[in-house]
Amino acid sequence: MVQIPNPPPSDPSAPRSVPTSADVARLAGVSRATVSYVLNNTGTVRISEPTRRRVREAARQLGYVPHAAARSLRAGHSRMVLMPAPSFPAGPLYSRFLSELQWALGRLDYTVVQYGTVGLRGDEAARAWAELRPVAVLAPGSDLGPQGVEVLKRSGARAVVTLGPEAVDGAHALLTDQAGVGRSATRHLYDRGRRRIGVVVPAEGGLDVFSAPRLAGAREAVSGTDATVTELPLAYDEGDAARLAARWRPLGLDAVFAYNDEYAMLLMRALQDEGLDIPGHAAVIGADDLMLGRLLRPRLSTVHLELPAGRDLAALVDRAVHAPGAAPERHKVLGATVVHRESS
Amino acid sequence: MVQIPNPPPSDPSAPRSVPTSADVARLAGVSRATVSYVLNNTGTVRISEPTRRRVREAARQLGYVPHAAARSLRAGHSRMVLMPAPSFPAGPLYSRFLSELQWALGRLDYTVVQYGTVGLRGDEAARAWAELRPVAVLAPGSDLGPQGVEVLKRSGARAVVTLGPEAVDGAHALLTDQAGVGRSATRHLYDRGRRRIGVVVPAEGGLDVFSAPRLAGAREAVSGTDATVTELPLAYDEGDAARLAARWRPLGLDAVFAYNDEYAMLLMRALQDEGLDIPGHAAVIGADDLMLGRLLRPRLSTVHLELPAGRDLAALVDRAVHAPGAAPERHKVLGATVVHRESS
Repeated sequence: MVQIPNPPPSDPSAPRSVPTSADVARLAGVSRATVSYVLNNTGTVRISEPTRRRVREAARQLGYVPHAAARSLRAGHSRMVLMPAPSFPAGPLYSRFLSELQWALGRLDYTVVQYGTVGLRGDEAARAWAELRPVAVLAPGSDLGPQGVEVLKRSGARAVVTLGPEAVDGAHALLTDQAGVGRSATRHLYDRGRRRIGVVVPAEGGLDVFSAPRLAGAREAVSGTDATVTELPLAYDEGDAARLAARWRPLGLDAVFAYNDEYAMLLMRALQDEGLDIPGHAAVIGADDLMLGRLLRPRLSTVHLELPAGRDLAALVDRAVHAPGAAPERHKVLGATVVHRESS
Repeated sequence: MVQIPNPPPSDPSAPRSVPTSADVARLAGVSRATVSYVLNNTGTVRISEPTRRRVREAARQLGYVPHAAARSLRAGHSRMVLMPAPSFPAGPLYSRFLSELQWALGRLDYTVVQYGTVGLRGDEAARAWAELRPVAVLAPGSDLGPQGVEVLKRSGARAVVTLGPEAVDGAHALLTDQAGVGRSATRHLYDRGRRRIGVVVPAEGGLDVFSAPRLAGAREAVSGTDATVTELPLAYDEGDAARLAARWRPLGLDAVFAYNDEYAMLLMRALQDEGLDIPGHAAVIGADDLMLGRLLRPRLSTVHLELPAGRDLAALVDRAVHAPGAAPERHKVLGATVVHRESS
């Protein structure tokens, strides 16, 4: 960053003190309780319209904003739906899912807050989230055990929803069948006549919760057949892809499930630069069904994933918040469908 | 989502009541003040180690978690750095920047919270953020005016940092020169002998804060020369790209600055499918310097952008939090450097 000279400060005085509801009450000539009733829209107390106007005008003049914390202390919870911010760089598929979900929850008057859980693991993370008193938590199952769920519920969360391959005791579960992604991709390659199948496992951290079950699914798909599956570690890096491509012939492989479309693009380019024909010498399939796969030549085969619709998930959260004692729901998400194009 | 049958609830009783610090005090046989001193690590009060242990054990048994809200009510603020969640799908460049920043702030004991500001604009958004009483706010300047800054400071935020082409009164500013990106790209095309230059403007919402100044910068770069700049609206969609490619010859253009690498990849493919030679018939340059540009053939020229390092930005936030009365700092970020490859 290049610092540039400071302009003269627009307000050279020390920062003023933070206005409180007592200041608003004094200016409006009402009690603090009245201020609280008016500004928090408590419908149960009858307050005349002129008084309401006076309170609002005083709050505006003083720049007073009610404290969500104070409100949630009274109510025991907030309208906050907490999600841990992803620990891996979010791809386009996740970004779109998140946008949709934020809109859908926004329409139900919830606010999505993504919590940057840096370096906290398991129940420690759950305790940090609990301190914000979210009304609902939506988290990867890998980040949360039954104890974490308990901590969140004890601190007032009415709904905990996990996303992952397995359900967590006490929480609603969106079951994502990552193994199914590997199974579909590998079965497709097998059906196209391939028998020596590589499976890319990203070297980047944070992705193993996806890549390990995908690899397991790939092994499952060919178990008991004459085909083999070979694990191929790969960093998202041109040099590493070139090294793997140079080993392609010695490895004796004829196909690869490349984890996702981005790794597939990287590896396909390296294989082409190595003089290998796609799909002749190497059938390639990715996953995620991103636009970029359609722009490659040959066009990239892929596994299309169906993330839960934001609207459905928002409805689940809302239902769960309103019935905190109900039995946990279980939903299967992430239907995996092979999209066959030219690369396989 | 496919619902699958519920397992029997693991705990059929109604949810238990939320444990309070009074419960902890009762179980540990100490006062509530002592509980607060121990669990909030208040160093000023001397409490014996056995008492501390008793309080911690009682809190653990009851599943009690201190309320961040209560703590921030006492302290007047939290360790929360609030950022609005981006309203557009975040690209890889932004994702990496955010990861870095979260780590760097985490090391300074701040927590980054991304707030999903759906449908709120300007000061209304600032008021919603203020309710969480963040100690610092880091927001695009387009989302925040001087009044919003005032609201945040009044509610206890010690530092407001904006990111955008212009500074906002009362806030620290990271000045991003988007016009400079368009200027560099277009000057490069001009220097390569191109005179009829198209500039892609994404049709997608939320990107105009970037695309409008980039287009203005492009116009600036050729003003007073014999070259022209033509605005090319483009949706991130194969059909739209094909239609634009089909109009390429009639438009009489010889080069294009394609907004970023992803739009460049889309348009370059459509131009190639139309039988046009890159860079012969159309020189193409993107921006962001993503890996995918190096994987294309011809390799994509691009503008490399330097986002602020997470560590520097975290240090600025921390400095500002400790000196809330200091004059606003101004820093230029987003240095734009052309990376010339084969497509231009």
